[in-house]
Amino acid sequence: MNYIFRQKQLATLLRRGGFDALLVTHLPNVLYLCGFTGTAGVLLFQVSDRAHKATFYTDGRYDQQAHAEVKSAKVVVGKKAAFAEACEGAQKAKVRTLGFEADHLSYSAYKQIGMTVRGKTRIKPAAGLVEQLRLIKDGDEIGQIRASVLLAASLFQTALSVIKPGVAETQVAGELELQARRAGAEKMSFDTIVAAGPRSALPHGRASAQPIPPQGFIILDYGVILASYCSDMTRTVHAGAVSRSHRRMYEAVKEAQLASIAAVKPGVETGEVDRAGREVLKKAGFDAFFTHSTGHGVGIEVHEQPRLAKGQTQKLAPGMVVTIEPGIYIPEEGGVRIEDMVLVTETGHEVLTPTAKDLITL
Amino acid sequence: MNYIFRQKQLATLLRRGGFDALLVTHLPNVLYLCGFTGTAGVLLFQVSDRAHKATFYTDGRYDQQAHAEVKSAKVVVGKKAAFAEACEGAQKAKVRTLGFEADHLSYSAYKQIGMTVRGKTRIKPAAGLVEQLRLIKDGDEIGQIRASVLLAASLFQTALSVIKPGVAETQVAGELELQARRAGAEKMSFDTIVAAGPRSALPHGRASAQPIPPQGFIILDYGVILASYCSDMTRTVHAGAVSRSHRRMYEAVKEAQLASIAAVKPGVETGEVDRAGREVLKKAGFDAFFTHSTGHGVGIEVHEQPRLAKGQTQKLAPGMVVTIEPGIYIPEEGGVRIEDMVLVTETGHEVLTPTAKDLITL
Repeated sequence: MNYIFRQKQLATLLRRGGFDALLVTHLPNVLYLCGFTGTAGVLLFQVSDRAHKATFYTDGRYDQQAHAEVKSAKVVVGKKAAFAEACEGAQKAKVRTLGFEADHLSYSAYKQIGMTVRGKTRIKPAAGLVEQLRLIKDGDEIGQIRASVLLAASLFQTALSVIKPGVAETQVAGELELQARRAGAEKMSFDTIVAAGPRSALPHGRASAQPIPPQGFIILDYGVILASYCSDMTRTVHAGAVSRSHRRMYEAVKEAQLASIAAVKPGVETGEVDRAGREVLKKAGFDAFFTHSTGHGVGIEVHEQPRLAKGQTQKLAPGMVVTIEPGIYIPEEGGVRIEDMVLVTETGHEVLTPTAKDLITL
Repeated sequence: MNYIFRQKQLATLLRRGGFDALLVTHLPNVLYLCGFTGTAGVLLFQVSDRAHKATFYTDGRYDQQAHAEVKSAKVVVGKKAAFAEACEGAQKAKVRTLGFEADHLSYSAYKQIGMTVRGKTRIKPAAGLVEQLRLIKDGDEIGQIRASVLLAASLFQTALSVIKPGVAETQVAGELELQARRAGAEKMSFDTIVAAGPRSALPHGRASAQPIPPQGFIILDYGVILASYCSDMTRTVHAGAVSRSHRRMYEAVKEAQLASIAAVKPGVETGEVDRAGREVLKKAGFDAFFTHSTGHGVGIEVHEQPRLAKGQTQKLAPGMVVTIEPGIYIPEEGGVRIEDMVLVTETGHEVLTPTAKDLITL
């Protein structure tokens, strides 16, 4: 990963915003800028007219790990918590205007900065700066994301081999997660969703102890973290004979998903991608049952910028990686969702998820 | 779970603090007060002299789930995000003094409250109020924690059945996690640690693709979430013949752990529990290698109050549930940690973790 390039880009953003330093506390941002994968670390990032200086603070538990992982930053292992040490670092460095990550830092921690620097430093909210860089994935990142997507896709076969009426949803999730581990995933990118029968009408139906009923939709929504990059995919399969109304639901979602994917290209507003799929569901009479947005960015975090939702005006650009995941949820009846990850390319898009979308019946 | 009792206790704390309402945004606190287990929900909790009123806000994705789970609160499914809806709720209710969870709410969200209520409401930080209630577990909670601890302990046998030199750490973690799923756990309470050989010197050595070496310590640190309650345990086993120095390390940690456990009783400061174990390691000449604190509370969150660390003056009280987990980490050589969960009782303590602590060699 090219940490130096990323740090130079951040330095430019900070100079433009009138900052002399940024306290990077959001761990995915810390990882992006210097490679640390642990759970306690803060980066103090200082800029001058022509140079920048990155100091990474952690505590004794992460001494060895920080020295092994952190690149392009000085490592300081302090006696206090990383955040307290980093605030003291800013105070000692006499930073004039110190930015902090307002979307991620708690109000209490914000107050703690003020107590440490004590009026000599101007503390100024700096929301979304590193996120702005992370929005466009570089070549290394796209490579990692591809690997993570392919691993997740391979697990769909595992799920199909165990899923059948009578098996608990958690059992399906467990087998899939074990395979993920065997294939080298660090962990799942979020709580695995296995939602069968009426539970498929819950857009966020985490796997429960409920056995899969003999009849109805089963939504599988999951992803892995592989080498720090996330994947996210959804497929819906069906147990028992497929009624005409279930067939209509499935085909409408599939058509909507393809319509939204077709809309993905540089310069298009994310709200337009949402609209393309929603229109299809409207024509089929299902739009009232599509109760969430169309998608989100994926990278170091499984939910990151951009948001693909009604009315959003952000424009797509090459290097963005997003999910396209329309769904229909009919209470007590069931639900359907189909989700792929899609890369925005120079000329249009590339669907990263290789898994077929024809309705599979068990 | 007795949500009404908890809400009454919170109402008392709020009246004492001069608050007319609290915006409960920290999800473990929301769960504690009204039973919601999803990932998007805010509770607006209003108090008057003699009564209180709880309104739970969520979005369309959690409509069914909220109505099924939430007790002792009115459920509002809004069109906007739950937080925005709850802020508007506070504005419409003309709350005079509105508390917010300063340790958990981002600076940006704090600003958003102000934009919504627009000067008619005084916004005041309220840190740790619900946490103060959660510190003392009630009978229902202790029952859930016991079940979670026993499930985790049963997984140690699973781990022992697969762990051996040559097997990847992630494979051990994966088998253990699959068993957890089969036994009904929602998920692991944190990233499973399997750290073998020199990696055992990393206090937070998440399972890696590294095969277990033929010789050295292996730390297993993991826990499950069962019915929303966490467990957390650590055992250290040894591959190959145990050298005299490794035996000394292990026995020192075991003795230190027993000494800290023996110190657990109502009225004792948590710093004293830490000191008891640290003294043992000092006598054995290992105190410089005990680089973290002795333990932490466990409940809905795997790390919660109280902290058992050097110099802490908080006093233990019946109903607290804490970990006792001293360790020694010698860089490049290896590490040992032993961790139990312990309940503070009226007269002393009860060790909840049933697993033996004699050194197991593979």
